[in-house]
Amino acid sequence: MNASAPTPDLEWSDLDARAVDTLRVLAADAVQKVGNGHPGTAMSLAPAAYLLFQRFLQHDPRDSHWTGRDRFVLSAGHSSLTLYLQLFLSGYDVSLEDIASLRTWGSKTPGHPEYQHTDGVEITTGPLGQGLASAVGMAMAARRERGLLDPDAPEGQSPFDHTVWVIASDGDLMEGVTSEASSLAGHQELGNLVVIYDDNKISIEDDTDVSFSEDVLARYASYGWHTQRVDWTEGKDGYVEDVQALAGALAAAKAETGKPSIISLRTIIGWPAPTKKNTGAIHGSALGGDELSAVKELLGFDPEQSFVVADEVLAHARKIVDRGAEAHAAWDETFSRWRAANPERAELFDRMAERSLPEGWTDALPEFPAGKAVATRAASGKVLTALAPVLPELWGGSADLAGSNNTTMDGEPSFLPAHRSTDKFAGNPYGRTLHFGIREHAMGSIMNGMALHGGTRPYGGTFLVFSDYMRPAVRLAALMQIPVTFVWTHDSIGLGEDGPTHQPIEHLASLRAIPGLDVVRPADANEVSWAWRTVLERTHRPAGVVLTRQNVPTFERGAGDAQGSTLAAASGTARGAYVLAEAGSGEPQVIIVATGSEVQIALEARTTLESEGIGTRVVSMPCREWFDDQDEHYRSAVLPPAVRARVSIEAGVAQGWREIVGDAGRIVSIEHFGASADYERLYTEFGLTAEAVVSAAKESV
Amino acid sequence: MNASAPTPDLEWSDLDARAVDTLRVLAADAVQKVGNGHPGTAMSLAPAAYLLFQRFLQHDPRDSHWTGRDRFVLSAGHSSLTLYLQLFLSGYDVSLEDIASLRTWGSKTPGHPEYQHTDGVEITTGPLGQGLASAVGMAMAARRERGLLDPDAPEGQSPFDHTVWVIASDGDLMEGVTSEASSLAGHQELGNLVVIYDDNKISIEDDTDVSFSEDVLARYASYGWHTQRVDWTEGKDGYVEDVQALAGALAAAKAETGKPSIISLRTIIGWPAPTKKNTGAIHGSALGGDELSAVKELLGFDPEQSFVVADEVLAHARKIVDRGAEAHAAWDETFSRWRAANPERAELFDRMAERSLPEGWTDALPEFPAGKAVATRAASGKVLTALAPVLPELWGGSADLAGSNNTTMDGEPSFLPAHRSTDKFAGNPYGRTLHFGIREHAMGSIMNGMALHGGTRPYGGTFLVFSDYMRPAVRLAALMQIPVTFVWTHDSIGLGEDGPTHQPIEHLASLRAIPGLDVVRPADANEVSWAWRTVLERTHRPAGVVLTRQNVPTFERGAGDAQGSTLAAASGTARGAYVLAEAGSGEPQVIIVATGSEVQIALEARTTLESEGIGTRVVSMPCREWFDDQDEHYRSAVLPPAVRARVSIEAGVAQGWREIVGDAGRIVSIEHFGASADYERLYTEFGLTAEAVVSAAKESV
Repeated sequence: MNASAPTPDLEWSDLDARAVDTLRVLAADAVQKVGNGHPGTAMSLAPAAYLLFQRFLQHDPRDSHWTGRDRFVLSAGHSSLTLYLQLFLSGYDVSLEDIASLRTWGSKTPGHPEYQHTDGVEITTGPLGQGLASAVGMAMAARRERGLLDPDAPEGQSPFDHTVWVIASDGDLMEGVTSEASSLAGHQELGNLVVIYDDNKISIEDDTDVSFSEDVLARYASYGWHTQRVDWTEGKDGYVEDVQALAGALAAAKAETGKPSIISLRTIIGWPAPTKKNTGAIHGSALGGDELSAVKELLGFDPEQSFVVADEVLAHARKIVDRGAEAHAAWDETFSRWRAANPERAELFDRMAERSLPEGWTDALPEFPAGKAVATRAASGKVLTALAPVLPELWGGSADLAGSNNTTMDGEPSFLPAHRSTDKFAGNPYGRTLHFGIREHAMGSIMNGMALHGGTRPYGGTFLVFSDYMRPAVRLAALMQIPVTFVWTHDSIGLGEDGPTHQPIEHLASLRAIPGLDVVRPADANEVSWAWRTVLERTHRPAGVVLTRQNVPTFERGAGDAQGSTLAAASGTARGAYVLAEAGSGEPQVIIVATGSEVQIALEARTTLESEGIGTRVVSMPCREWFDDQDEHYRSAVLPPAVRARVSIEAGVAQGWREIVGDAGRIVSIEHFGASADYERLYTEFGLTAEAVVSAAKESV
Repeated sequence: MNASAPTPDLEWSDLDARAVDTLRVLAADAVQKVGNGHPGTAMSLAPAAYLLFQRFLQHDPRDSHWTGRDRFVLSAGHSSLTLYLQLFLSGYDVSLEDIASLRTWGSKTPGHPEYQHTDGVEITTGPLGQGLASAVGMAMAARRERGLLDPDAPEGQSPFDHTVWVIASDGDLMEGVTSEASSLAGHQELGNLVVIYDDNKISIEDDTDVSFSEDVLARYASYGWHTQRVDWTEGKDGYVEDVQALAGALAAAKAETGKPSIISLRTIIGWPAPTKKNTGAIHGSALGGDELSAVKELLGFDPEQSFVVADEVLAHARKIVDRGAEAHAAWDETFSRWRAANPERAELFDRMAERSLPEGWTDALPEFPAGKAVATRAASGKVLTALAPVLPELWGGSADLAGSNNTTMDGEPSFLPAHRSTDKFAGNPYGRTLHFGIREHAMGSIMNGMALHGGTRPYGGTFLVFSDYMRPAVRLAALMQIPVTFVWTHDSIGLGEDGPTHQPIEHLASLRAIPGLDVVRPADANEVSWAWRTVLERTHRPAGVVLTRQNVPTFERGAGDAQGSTLAAASGTARGAYVLAEAGSGEPQVIIVATGSEVQIALEARTTLESEGIGTRVVSMPCREWFDDQDEHYRSAVLPPAVRARVSIEAGVAQGWREIVGDAGRIVSIEHFGASADYERLYTEFGLTAEAVVSAAKESV
């Protein structure tokens, strides 16, 4: 649905032209004032950004969370002014004073756009490539949302039809993550995605010819994209900002609904700065007083004044508020009709909109019988399959490791254009099982885009060691505090024969170092069930669920706290750490703290220690972050300060464990890379054994 | 130089065919025996790998380190048998018993090829994309080596001319890192690089059509590569392993010296396994007894026997030993003539071959005058420029941040085809300054390839926060223990206005978690000089040099140990940590440990504490790994166990610092993401101040 379809004949008044020039001057003013920043692109892209926000983007500046809105992604996040100035001019909650406070403490206009910080900012961008890659996820989520809520509406007629618009830079196009995501976008035939590539041939090292000479549009054509070129340099020597040509290209891109579109827009960065345009200098530095004055004179502004916006210009631009309100009102009618006709789907919509979980959903979570050894990845697969009917918003897949990551909900179709179905995976455009290909980084960024789009809850799997490939996306999920779930299996040397390239050693530590990310490593199948439950209940935070390849015992547990020889219920998982086994005497002399597959070793060591008269408590600690969230009382109950004899065991580096075990404690860890052999051999060779824990415990007591 | 240029008319005897079939059976036998692994590609690629090793690759199985050899990179590392079997059949130090010990503890044949572990393995591969991306680095290093040692020889006539051959899989081609590296390879016109892309259309999720439908060769053409297609499926229905066609394509690829080449070789994975060929199952699992027997029968082998190689087949294949020796001998003559004609260059060659540093090279290292505030990145730039004339093997650049990373040695030309020179960077094919573009991940992998190629010492820069983008490559450098130097500037919230997307918080901790990587964060300009000195002296280990954007004071130091108000000399940097300032009394009551830009804060806090009568030692700890390498005596002297009152300060997460400060200590850190503002403001707002250190010290005492 698109209430503001552009006409081929664009009306472009003097006031529009004046608005664009005003944007250029404001961009230069803002950077000049703070003394640092990126004015160049904001100046030369002003016509494109203004055209987009005024004539193409379906938005309502008075309701930046409107479900029916198009999404705008500034992948070139360093040019944050490009976005802030449109937000200001369109009437979002961004004022001229905010523009003048660019890049200062507490302002609404930080160096790069920040999600949840500034009205109208859909995504945090800056790390190059992430915006475009996440936009692919938004476009995929939009299709899935439509499939869940309004699958039978004709194309363009659903209140859930909207377009994702992206502005990307040379840097975005060089980053591998966009290559991955763009290849997948072509494969997925995302007709609701339009990218303007600002082909200004300047990056920080000046002329991009020093490192970048590929034919970008030919590359995108090879991915299956619709490609267009608009060259404002007219070949080479002139420069005419042919807004009409760009408008035509944008209209054609939007009209192409069977493929994603990219428009290569050749601009001159910093236009029309007389001496600094087309240089690396104007990309990332203030213009300087003389150059700024020259720009103002050239454009008919008073060089003595800064941050000036003529009333008539602002009034003209702000008409978008009315147009947005009209579009919104028209949409509301369609939406109301849809609600009335689809009461059950409307209920799902409401729930998805507020990210609430359905009444009684936890009843679907499996309880696993004790005794049988089950890999935690397998248990996770069973949990996902069990949740499939009760949580339609949950969807996910793998970076080509579906069978290994156990990420496929049994029987759910693949999210694919139907003609892309394979013998093994049948699908349709509204399917649920995601196939990211061997593209871990794009998987991360795409999931971020899905979560940002809103509604659905995405998850995606790969081996834990390859979390390295997706780390920039994981960091952004944590920074944005969005509910993305990373499924990381094959979580230690326990994966065995594939050897050191595939065996995580440092990954638990390095992921725990990321603020705002929950790293969850359940010990057995029932902890897996509780881990998923807790992850899904935490709706404003990403989590990594870290799972074994190898089988681990499903512990025989009691219904409550640990006592005597009875192990505690798995519900303690939700608190991040809990007493799994208490000292036989009830008075622990030593505490063994373990995570994941090493909890069984801790229990084995406890048996020995207890048999030798050493009262031993075992604490299972699936999530350090959740434990840190508990109150002091609970934490002291699990780890009483008086019990200083402590041992930790985890199949990874020791880093971070001293905080738990203290000066008197011992850490059983691996401080080197792994090796290729069966995993039992590796555990023995590397000293991750009950014997090692027993002797460490004796040293510590 | 190429002693074994193939003739267009390939001789392919029955013995060659038998050798290929033997390889298929051995691959299946090896996986069947251990019960896990990847037989499929090793079976279907046997003809291609055999053709390459027997007829194209210039190598001498008796001297796997021969300077004149071609390089072979198995980017599809999971198909390690493809390589191991060629090494065995060619006569490297890999026996049939080794093949039969696949993926077992201590064997020469681990799950994925490991550098420095198995004779003839040039690079550790397995994490997809890394091999191809590093091969680009090998090809670049080969050109630089030629430029340093034999720049005037006609093309193909130098003993330093050789070719880098790669076998890559679908997975390699999907990973973004190869997109980045391949774009750069096209830009660099690397005519010495040939890639065979095994287009078998099967990955772990079976048919790659589920996620991968781009036109790979069109993409490579867009990068400027020479592209060819060889289709053994003859369109679709047949399957003829037309070795002649592949040989023709390889010859044409080698003949193309102005561009890198890619040959898309359409194969059927697992050929000729009757029921499992062309399935995801044969990609990563044993065939099973029946299927294996069927393969053997089909190929005329005895199903009852395993690991059988007919004597005449082995003798035929092993003739490569003689051909290799002949080629080597011919090369030796050319090389000797070159040595005689180029005594100075020969000296450099010898030094580079053994990675020794020239006599007196440290004299070139700058000493920085005290008092002046200098950003450590700026000091690093001065060190590199000072080293340029004495260490020709040292070269490097940046991922489009040359001016910010200070990675350009003044006056050194860029490494570029001359016609790619820009106004700012003039270059030539043998230049020294590297321009990676905005491709951090490829930069890391390419540097690995350069170090693996041997001879030169590469470095490459980006912002510390973007070490995340290159992390898989950093891990491999650490795993392979190769001397790559990562230059990571803008190392904290001290970068200021760019905000949280650009401010590292968790990166020091997460990089220190990687075994075998030195993370070096010097405190002032003179520590920078010592840091580079120490990094360069450690020739079998990667290091990250972590540098400030903001100015920091260059400390006024004495010539020896700290005493009274005299600070210690910067030479202690080489030991990883040292007493920078001693307690006035000589008897510290508290020790403040700091790194990088926070050392100045530690010194300021010391002044206050001393003025209040609290004897305070300041330890500068630029490199935890180097400090861990010191003997217990030294470590105890720096951090006497008796002094339990300790404070650490570092502008990053606390993780890992408890190990240093102990239970009684305090950690001044940042446990959340940063913000966009000037850095002084951020240091104050986030509590990284001398006052905070003083009060922490008082708590700790």
